[in-house]
Amino acid sequence: MTSETLEARLRKIGEERYHDKHPFHDRLHGGHCSPDEVRAWVINRWAYQAAIPMKDAAFISRCTDPDMRRAWRSRIEDHDGGIDEGGGIRRWLKLAEAVGLDADYVASGKGVLPATRFAVEAYIRYVQTMPLLQAVASSLTELFAPKIHERRIEGLLEHYAFANTESLSYFKNRLDQAPRDVAFGLQWVLDHADTAEKEDMACDALIFKTEVLWAQLDAIWSAYVEPGRIPPGAWQPGEGLR
Amino acid sequence: MTSETLEARLRKIGEERYHDKHPFHDRLHGGHCSPDEVRAWVINRWAYQAAIPMKDAAFISRCTDPDMRRAWRSRIEDHDGGIDEGGGIRRWLKLAEAVGLDADYVASGKGVLPATRFAVEAYIRYVQTMPLLQAVASSLTELFAPKIHERRIEGLLEHYAFANTESLSYFKNRLDQAPRDVAFGLQWVLDHADTAEKEDMACDALIFKTEVLWAQLDAIWSAYVEPGRIPPGAWQPGEGLR
Repeated sequence: MTSETLEARLRKIGEERYHDKHPFHDRLHGGHCSPDEVRAWVINRWAYQAAIPMKDAAFISRCTDPDMRRAWRSRIEDHDGGIDEGGGIRRWLKLAEAVGLDADYVASGKGVLPATRFAVEAYIRYVQTMPLLQAVASSLTELFAPKIHERRIEGLLEHYAFANTESLSYFKNRLDQAPRDVAFGLQWVLDHADTAEKEDMACDALIFKTEVLWAQLDAIWSAYVEPGRIPPGAWQPGEGLR
Repeated sequence: MTSETLEARLRKIGEERYHDKHPFHDRLHGGHCSPDEVRAWVINRWAYQAAIPMKDAAFISRCTDPDMRRAWRSRIEDHDGGIDEGGGIRRWLKLAEAVGLDADYVASGKGVLPATRFAVEAYIRYVQTMPLLQAVASSLTELFAPKIHERRIEGLLEHYAFANTESLSYFKNRLDQAPRDVAFGLQWVLDHADTAEKEDMACDALIFKTEVLWAQLDAIWSAYVEPGRIPPGAWQPGEGLR
């Protein structure tokens, strides 16, 4: 099996399992989400975004190779940014404000669905504990991210009054960041998955990661899309507004 | 604050958040689940049951007090049992067979919803990593278990042809085991939560555990109750039959 074949396998996993196929995204990007459905998505997806620097720090904490640590560090910088200007996480809070939410409420993580937390924590733990090859491969959903971000920017701008350059700046920035990150991660996986067993491991890791993303949208749909069964303690529409 | 007050707070958490309030249980116990909905529940709940001995071993691995380890060990014994006769987990597989599933398929864990796995793993990790008081308190959902097991036995016997003494033996056994386990755990929590902060911690742990249980039913409902959006890779009706 050649590395071209592995790359094709990884891309096929994306075609079949990446969360751009989840009906919540059709609903969101097609302008069919109610304001509260958008808010539920912003609140819950915050928990994922906010965990990314911790996930990447967990990864770096396992890297004995300084070059790899250096290459990986930009991911933390992208999301956390500087003390004054902030980074991706702060840009996400701009989106939160634009959809009418209080940024401090969103940043507190209160009201996040337990299922979201469990999925996000599973991702951090995976990167902390699994073989390094799989920790890297689990990041390769970024192969498929630019396409969904382009679709999202286009769909939100077309259908929602809150959408503008500032509120969508998180996604705009990711259009440049994700391809740079994934170029490194993909090459590393292709170089290091040098047996059939390791190729399978890399694919399993990417499948795991698609499950983490998909489960978050299932949880949002289950709780907030009609009829919507909100679990005890989770965000109720009307809470956390600006 | 007295320990009577703490016990009342814990019981109130159960009244408000225990998964006997989840609509899936009304559906299951009232005879309204389709055979495939019952199967989905059996397959996914297996993942939880099968994790209990690992969760309890994680707990024991942290106990420096031999008496506490001795008291806790029966939980592992209850679920794993002996090599020949088995325990609660093997009784769960009797239920799996009774609803038409292949026991080996169920035991393989294939087809379990990612959201179920994430919730179950969150529980194991909680017991591994949180303060011992919270690790114990997270088990106190057993305060509320006998009532739901009684209701379940009654409802399943009334409404489903697969229900009989053998297929429901898991629940029948838990009627005796859970009260014994919880008597120890509750007393330990009441004795050790000797400040207001620790009482809050104990309550938080029990809330966490109710979230673990609730999230599992949300995931089953989301995937398998009409209209049902089954995530990629999860069990499809027709798979894993005897």
